Amino acid sequence: MKSNILMLHRSWISRRIILLSIAICFLSFPKIGRSEDGYRLWLRYDLVSNNQLLKEYRTAIKNFLVDGESPTLTIAANELQLGLTGLLGSPIKKITSLSNDGTLIAGTIQSSLLAGIKEKEKLKSMGKEGFLILTTVLQGKKVIVVVANEDIGVLYGVFHFLRLLQTQQSISSINIESKPKINLRLLNHWDNLDRTIERGYAGFSIWDWHKLPDYIDQRYYDYARANASIGINGSVITNVNANALALTPAYLKKFAALADVFRPYGIKVYLTARFSAPMEIGELATADPLDEKVQQWWKEKAKEIYNYIPDFGGFLVKANSEGQPGPQNYKRTHADGANMLADAVKPFHGVVMWRAFVYDNNVPEDRTKQAYNEFKPLDGSFRDNVIVQVKNGPLDFQPREPFHPLFGAMPKTPLMMEFQITQEYLGFSTHLVFLPSLFKEVLDADTYNKGPGSAVAKIIDGSIDQHTLSGIAGVANIGTDRNWCGHPFAQANWYGFGRLAWDHQLTAVDIAQEWTRMTLSNDSEVVKPITSMLLTSRETVVNYMTPLGLHHIMGWSHHYGPGPWVKDKPRADWTAVYYHRADTAGIGFDRTPSGSNAVGQYFPEVEKRFSSLATCPEEYLLWFHHVSWNYKMKSGNTLWNELCYKYSSGIAAVRSMQTTWKSMKDKVDADRYKQVTMLLNVQQQEALQWRNSCLLYFQTFSHQPIPSELEKPEHTLDYYEKLSYPYAPGINPKW
Amino acid sequence: MKSNILMLHRSWISRRIILLSIAICFLSFPKIGRSEDGYRLWLRYDLVSNNQLLKEYRTAIKNFLVDGESPTLTIAANELQLGLTGLLGSPIKKITSLSNDGTLIAGTIQSSLLAGIKEKEKLKSMGKEGFLILTTVLQGKKVIVVVANEDIGVLYGVFHFLRLLQTQQSISSINIESKPKINLRLLNHWDNLDRTIERGYAGFSIWDWHKLPDYIDQRYYDYARANASIGINGSVITNVNANALALTPAYLKKFAALADVFRPYGIKVYLTARFSAPMEIGELATADPLDEKVQQWWKEKAKEIYNYIPDFGGFLVKANSEGQPGPQNYKRTHADGANMLADAVKPFHGVVMWRAFVYDNNVPEDRTKQAYNEFKPLDGSFRDNVIVQVKNGPLDFQPREPFHPLFGAMPKTPLMMEFQITQEYLGFSTHLVFLPSLFKEVLDADTYNKGPGSAVAKIIDGSIDQHTLSGIAGVANIGTDRNWCGHPFAQANWYGFGRLAWDHQLTAVDIAQEWTRMTLSNDSEVVKPITSMLLTSRETVVNYMTPLGLHHIMGWSHHYGPGPWVKDKPRADWTAVYYHRADTAGIGFDRTPSGSNAVGQYFPEVEKRFSSLATCPEEYLLWFHHVSWNYKMKSGNTLWNELCYKYSSGIAAVRSMQTTWKSMKDKVDADRYKQVTMLLNVQQQEALQWRNSCLLYFQTFSHQPIPSELEKPEHTLDYYEKLSYPYAPGINPKW
Repeated sequence: MKSNILMLHRSWISRRIILLSIAICFLSFPKIGRSEDGYRLWLRYDLVSNNQLLKEYRTAIKNFLVDGESPTLTIAANELQLGLTGLLGSPIKKITSLSNDGTLIAGTIQSSLLAGIKEKEKLKSMGKEGFLILTTVLQGKKVIVVVANEDIGVLYGVFHFLRLLQTQQSISSINIESKPKINLRLLNHWDNLDRTIERGYAGFSIWDWHKLPDYIDQRYYDYARANASIGINGSVITNVNANALALTPAYLKKFAALADVFRPYGIKVYLTARFSAPMEIGELATADPLDEKVQQWWKEKAKEIYNYIPDFGGFLVKANSEGQPGPQNYKRTHADGANMLADAVKPFHGVVMWRAFVYDNNVPEDRTKQAYNEFKPLDGSFRDNVIVQVKNGPLDFQPREPFHPLFGAMPKTPLMMEFQITQEYLGFSTHLVFLPSLFKEVLDADTYNKGPGSAVAKIIDGSIDQHTLSGIAGVANIGTDRNWCGHPFAQANWYGFGRLAWDHQLTAVDIAQEWTRMTLSNDSEVVKPITSMLLTSRETVVNYMTPLGLHHIMGWSHHYGPGPWVKDKPRADWTAVYYHRADTAGIGFDRTPSGSNAVGQYFPEVEKRFSSLATCPEEYLLWFHHVSWNYKMKSGNTLWNELCYKYSSGIAAVRSMQTTWKSMKDKVDADRYKQVTMLLNVQQQEALQWRNSCLLYFQTFSHQPIPSELEKPEHTLDYYEKLSYPYAPGINPKW
Repeated sequence: MKSNILMLHRSWISRRIILLSIAICFLSFPKIGRSEDGYRLWLRYDLVSNNQLLKEYRTAIKNFLVDGESPTLTIAANELQLGLTGLLGSPIKKITSLSNDGTLIAGTIQSSLLAGIKEKEKLKSMGKEGFLILTTVLQGKKVIVVVANEDIGVLYGVFHFLRLLQTQQSISSINIESKPKINLRLLNHWDNLDRTIERGYAGFSIWDWHKLPDYIDQRYYDYARANASIGINGSVITNVNANALALTPAYLKKFAALADVFRPYGIKVYLTARFSAPMEIGELATADPLDEKVQQWWKEKAKEIYNYIPDFGGFLVKANSEGQPGPQNYKRTHADGANMLADAVKPFHGVVMWRAFVYDNNVPEDRTKQAYNEFKPLDGSFRDNVIVQVKNGPLDFQPREPFHPLFGAMPKTPLMMEFQITQEYLGFSTHLVFLPSLFKEVLDADTYNKGPGSAVAKIIDGSIDQHTLSGIAGVANIGTDRNWCGHPFAQANWYGFGRLAWDHQLTAVDIAQEWTRMTLSNDSEVVKPITSMLLTSRETVVNYMTPLGLHHIMGWSHHYGPGPWVKDKPRADWTAVYYHRADTAGIGFDRTPSGSNAVGQYFPEVEKRFSSLATCPEEYLLWFHHVSWNYKMKSGNTLWNELCYKYSSGIAAVRSMQTTWKSMKDKVDADRYKQVTMLLNVQQQEALQWRNSCLLYFQTFSHQPIPSELEKPEHTLDYYEKLSYPYAPGINPKW
């Protein structure tokens, strides 16, 4: 920087103009490396476009003061400098002592300046991460105060305050209390040591293992900053299909370097533990969790890790699932395995996140029932630093699934939610889909475990069963692509996950509006149409992929594109026919007592609603029932016709997204306008491919015509079956 | 853009300031997504820092005029707008009719305005790509003219002119004639269809195959622009270890989309041809080049490709080398294979680049002799649209090799140079090494094929043997890393390759200075020290890796780090001991008549010089001779001591690079300063590892001490041998 400033001094440009230009520079210019490439995510800090608000902000914020010193407070100060200068269009000075009205003050309640504020009582209940933002009077000056119990709370408060300006809220009189409802708010990175990402669609891993620990990529800081801005406080940086080498010193040094970068942003590093590591990188002949040598090995390994990373968060484990080793290899239970690791990290306050995503090809049982069958009996047998990580649904991140029956079924065990932000089953990074709608649907679902009002959200935040340990994880959609997530709109899913992890009471609408205002524009002619486009996008994808409760009919292995015809694979439950069960009589998986009776895993009220054809919500119909092609739907259509209309409505909705986006041409930057236009075009083609493939295929069973008013498929079923994606991204090389 | 301009109008910032700010924005600010991240390469166009020159430029260039219309001329106009506005610090207007002195005019000689210039005679000899830049008088106005026979020449001239300003040359009176000495100036991308890059160290492939052809990444335009700026006119976009799937319609559509992007920048797309493709994606039972069905298959395939890409450049082929299929599988010659493909692309004016990099593990012969043995006898038997691509040295891109004996040995066949820009054997992207020094050493080497003065450069530019077809290729070091090449200084190797491909008479000094001025700073306190650092860097790497003619003693398979101890591999010539042949008597590969007699492949003058211990240049000593540990070197040292001093001098040189760079702290931008500081630290550690590993290992043969005044190795040989890089980048998954 200094060199540039010198250059400017030498030049004829006055200091004043330099400073203006700093603000102007935050606007995008069509310049190589200077265009709106999406790298800034939702932290754009462009000049406030509403002049009246701009005036209000400038009056309320003449300068700012950060009381106290620490790496985290330095980050908070830099963020205020950057954000306020950009948003207000002129440099906002950082001062060191309060001298005038219109000062923004940030600090902890221990700081000399804030120790005396009259609202300090409120902080007692705000915990380690919570914060207050208040318009108040201090030393006779009208100020805005961002105050918290700890530095990280101050940083969260600063980001929250900047968000108010970014979304153009009035700040004439602020009185905000905010603290997270869930303790562990984590991203799970399925990143391999060769930088491939299992189910990654935004390039490759941002972790440049080869150059770590000595080369620290700027991107690591920017990653931590983005997460801190939405309250994410942990990152599992290795794949759940784990590699034991990750636990060797060469790699622990690399992880430690990342932990050092993340620490001041309030983010802890977690690792995945390969259960057989004691045999693969230790000298042991077994990995039996009840073997003392094995227990000792893990204790020493934990100690070694904490030497490199003093605030190491703990382990995430995928065991005895999809071929991964685990305690059952030794006739031990998941609890035996989890507890062994829990004992190893306990002295260092680490946790073990044990995944409930387990199924076994030797078990003829309905795959969706296996997690419940294996884990419910273990309720109460886990150590207090173990939390069981459960996917949102009983199968595997489908466009729509009913909530997982384990939620509410293990009251003595803290359960943690696992969402998938990366779009493994939702069109990778070429389909626009706003996932907070899906997240909310699950969080709001009522388990009835303590009677009505026992929402899944209350299970995972620990409030219903009084657990102090609570958590939520999202499988990241982050990669080396310049815009982080591949699709400019996929950033909204990272953002939305973080916001819901902090406060699951936020609505999808809140999040859609916030994100649109911060990332695209505050222009109401953008906010209104884009918000409604976001909010309908998830139902749209469900309609052209898997309407009415259909599931797992995607392409084999890579899960891209339609594959309802997939059969004859190593495992029955890796095929499509296993799930849709289409025949001449009808279609759908009977999970009622006459079938697999998966409904029996839910609490009676839910079980009752799902079991009966009459009361089962139609969006879950084919999930729970095998239904005749001529079954009358609520609409009055037969099931077959309804299926045709649903699939067709999906295309119509994508086309209307294209129309909406066209109208944004002069309202958003040219770069992202062009990108999204291309991507929506791809989505439209593929939605059509989905619709035509599925209808032509299911028609071979229904033997009924597609209603004549609907568009005819362009090609034959044979054509669609032959389409292939030999190098579709996101497949783990070892698969 | 439009939306931003509107926003600005609504705001209080005057139009004037907006325009200033556009210029100022080209300076780097420490802002997320706005910092000096290296993406702009050498095309930074920052404000000219020399005020006197700035005044001169502003007088000479008040506005500019591009006479004519075409996609290429539009690119030229945009580049002038961008470059002049940035360099001169205020917007330079594009005008449509000449009205004043101080106008820059660009166009072809066919354009109405330039048809009449008095210097038009000169253009007769400038060819399709050449250009003139002249200070002249037109319609009574003093103007600067960039004129060429074709649009692409105009674009090249525009980039050349902007370079003059970027490097702060006087333009008071310009008279420049420039045209390329070599026709085909290509990058070879060893990029796989899964986006891994064989020998890629800057991330992964920038070709996002999954999203192509419908999603066009901005990076494709920026890639083409950067190449056009240095005159590169072709790109082989797939790996020489080829995949037949690349020749199927699904991929041809993707390649066509890239070709459409590259075309206006004067860049043709080339593909690698998998020799066995007729069997793998055709229905044929053989790939025998003399089989009519096979010949027909390739003719139809070529026709199909040209339907997608009308200006397709042709094929690059690696056959019967390292396990790749080829004509010899059918007892045919390389000429049979090359000619079959040549006949297929001939009707469309395509070329075939057939690689001479061949060796066979069933041949006990010295690997460095095999290419010559196989290809020399074929001289004269290739079609006129075949060019044989020869690596710079007879082995494989070592830090130093003697020039390849095939240069000059096949007068009836056009030979094309293959350099490796990516640093497979030179520390990947963590070591700073300026390769134009290596390129020049080879280009200037005298083959003596027509007596003294028969430099390699004159062989490959076709001047010595009167070939109209000529070419030079560089294996690209480009990847998804934000700064394109991984190491900020590695950009200089891409740049330098392009500049030498255009004009091999440029010196390494010219190129080092140009690049430094364009990419870092014109401050003489930067240019002088950085230039000399660049110019010594290659010898530095040779000294700490493979001094005195040592070669191929790198780590097994990934070639990262030292591996002099590597032995017992599937092939002898994939081990280190095969090459250094260290024993108690001495070290080195005897390639004189008493050994493999590889020297016999050179012309007598060269052979004589290399064969005799007395006259063999010491930098090639152990390449050609097995030498006693106590042999007296010119320095007076024994070979063993000389080896110790050479390795140690390598470390010393790296440490002095660190000192030089430290002194740049306030003279270059903070971002790259930090990056290079970290990377030089890695290089220093690894140089030391190289030196210690090799000396400790060779000491087990020499049984002599390391001179006491030299630093002692920190660790034992055993320690170094145990170091491993399990997931070193750049290894093709299928290897």
